[in-house]
Amino acid sequence: METTKSTAVANSNIAVIKYWGKRDERLNLPANNSISFTMDDQLQTMTTVEFDGHLKQDVLVLNDRPATSKETGRVTAFLDIVRKMTKIKTKAKVVSKNSFPKSAGLASSASGFAALAGAASRAAGLNLSLRELSVLARYGSGSASRSIFGGAVEWLAGKKKDGSDSYSVQLSPQEDWANLRNVIGVVSESEKKVSSVEGMWRLKTSALFQSRLKTMDARLKTVRAAIKRNTFEDAVIPIMQDSDNMHAVMLDCWPPVRYLTDTSFEIMEKVLELNESHGKPVAAYTFDAGPNAHVYTTEKYAHEVERMLKYTDGVLRTLNCKIGKGIRFVNEDLF
Amino acid sequence: METTKSTAVANSNIAVIKYWGKRDERLNLPANNSISFTMDDQLQTMTTVEFDGHLKQDVLVLNDRPATSKETGRVTAFLDIVRKMTKIKTKAKVVSKNSFPKSAGLASSASGFAALAGAASRAAGLNLSLRELSVLARYGSGSASRSIFGGAVEWLAGKKKDGSDSYSVQLSPQEDWANLRNVIGVVSESEKKVSSVEGMWRLKTSALFQSRLKTMDARLKTVRAAIKRNTFEDAVIPIMQDSDNMHAVMLDCWPPVRYLTDTSFEIMEKVLELNESHGKPVAAYTFDAGPNAHVYTTEKYAHEVERMLKYTDGVLRTLNCKIGKGIRFVNEDLF
Repeated sequence: METTKSTAVANSNIAVIKYWGKRDERLNLPANNSISFTMDDQLQTMTTVEFDGHLKQDVLVLNDRPATSKETGRVTAFLDIVRKMTKIKTKAKVVSKNSFPKSAGLASSASGFAALAGAASRAAGLNLSLRELSVLARYGSGSASRSIFGGAVEWLAGKKKDGSDSYSVQLSPQEDWANLRNVIGVVSESEKKVSSVEGMWRLKTSALFQSRLKTMDARLKTVRAAIKRNTFEDAVIPIMQDSDNMHAVMLDCWPPVRYLTDTSFEIMEKVLELNESHGKPVAAYTFDAGPNAHVYTTEKYAHEVERMLKYTDGVLRTLNCKIGKGIRFVNEDLF
Repeated sequence: METTKSTAVANSNIAVIKYWGKRDERLNLPANNSISFTMDDQLQTMTTVEFDGHLKQDVLVLNDRPATSKETGRVTAFLDIVRKMTKIKTKAKVVSKNSFPKSAGLASSASGFAALAGAASRAAGLNLSLRELSVLARYGSGSASRSIFGGAVEWLAGKKKDGSDSYSVQLSPQEDWANLRNVIGVVSESEKKVSSVEGMWRLKTSALFQSRLKTMDARLKTVRAAIKRNTFEDAVIPIMQDSDNMHAVMLDCWPPVRYLTDTSFEIMEKVLELNESHGKPVAAYTFDAGPNAHVYTTEKYAHEVERMLKYTDGVLRTLNCKIGKGIRFVNEDLF
């Protein structure tokens, strides 16, 4: 197969119904469906890949610095999948740049592995469909599967043992969500103490986790229907409840996993007060595996939410994100 | 029946397997058994009661100040039960003193209603057994049922509709626990935002709560057996897990209930590190409906735990409590 230097761009996504727990660890298959919105270009990864017969090992440059061996190891494991698909034996050079800090609960692994899936498969001469790309990206990081699509996206858990039915589908294109915002309160930009992989691994110890899975379907149904109808308001409460539920299960693990800080909790309370003051649900908080607050709201209330976040002790900075595009291939390469 | 001025003293207790949720709200019957240790005289309430035909309404003096109407209302509701048992129609004067601040997660309602149950029943001319006192105290505050006994105590949920089989029993007398300490890190001395009553009321909204109830029996069995064998070490992990599990369920309620702060979480981590550094479980954290840390440990490690707490940012002061006595009647009255 003809190899070529290829560059892909993908954006991060922030789930409103969370992925937390796997039905198959090796294949990275989720225990439940999840739903997210893809973010705009403020939360973006651009990645260039070239397979090169001269290289003795894979080389990864991340945000202008040589990657750690742990980071390179994860990328090599991913490239091995592409090599297996294409019978390519050569090593690759991978250069990747985020528009935002890594591992700060801004879902850099989602945009990162989505962009890598695109660039690596294209560089290897493959021309995968979006669905195939979402399956491939999943091997790198579960949530990366969703970043292949723009707008509102659902990642299906699937039932098959080989994971071939676990891919993402677009629920609604980004054009439908021109009024939606994710106003982010960055509370920490440092790496989290307990990685998502480690955190999910501890789920075995939580008796409450099985109970979470049983209640997922009701929330999924409500949020999916609200998205299809384009009525964000109807999704607000279940979005917050799913975040709370996930963080509750984390706390029930042994040893307990905890990402929310006093600042996170203060933001949660303020969002509830905001909804109360407007007499209807206008904003929904959600927290990934980190303390950063993602407050989904409509354009009308975005400035009020941003002001609230700015005035909250412990918030380092805010980002006002629109809903963005799925993966795309570009002609400017990073090397 | 002959009435007389009576004074009782009861100590607070801190549960190691928590009471959180009721099977009957009117009768204050718990959804599950709970296990606690009764604290020493540092966490004590002394209460004097006298029924007095000259009074037009019940009078409550709490910590040298006239009580609020809310506090008086709760005491009147309790006195009504005693009046109903004895056909006494007169109002009562109640003077009560805590050795520690109210509503700061130091279980003042446990010692308070245990002492009130003793003093009020005795003042009304009743001579109740300890078991009967534990049933009576339960009407005031569930956990007060346990403060009737010293040492290690289990409050049985019971099954009967009328609650007559929901009383406390002593698992092991305080003499068996001369080496046990509860080293308390006081993180807040202000009243909690969400009362226990309100917090438990919200349990209806948590899907995880039913799952908690299903896992209680295993933890109860382990901790009960460890107490009977007098091997605290075997109870350490389930004690911490039960606290985590309860706070997880709280977070899963709607709106979410949250008592743990960054300081609480830091203490949790430090306790886990302490156990790791000793290569065995020597200390167990547990948190009631508040941010204050209760760290059960043995005499040998109590100073190390206390030092750790003192050096934790956000800890206002520490208390090193021994295991204490159950209710007793005294001759010095408060008025």
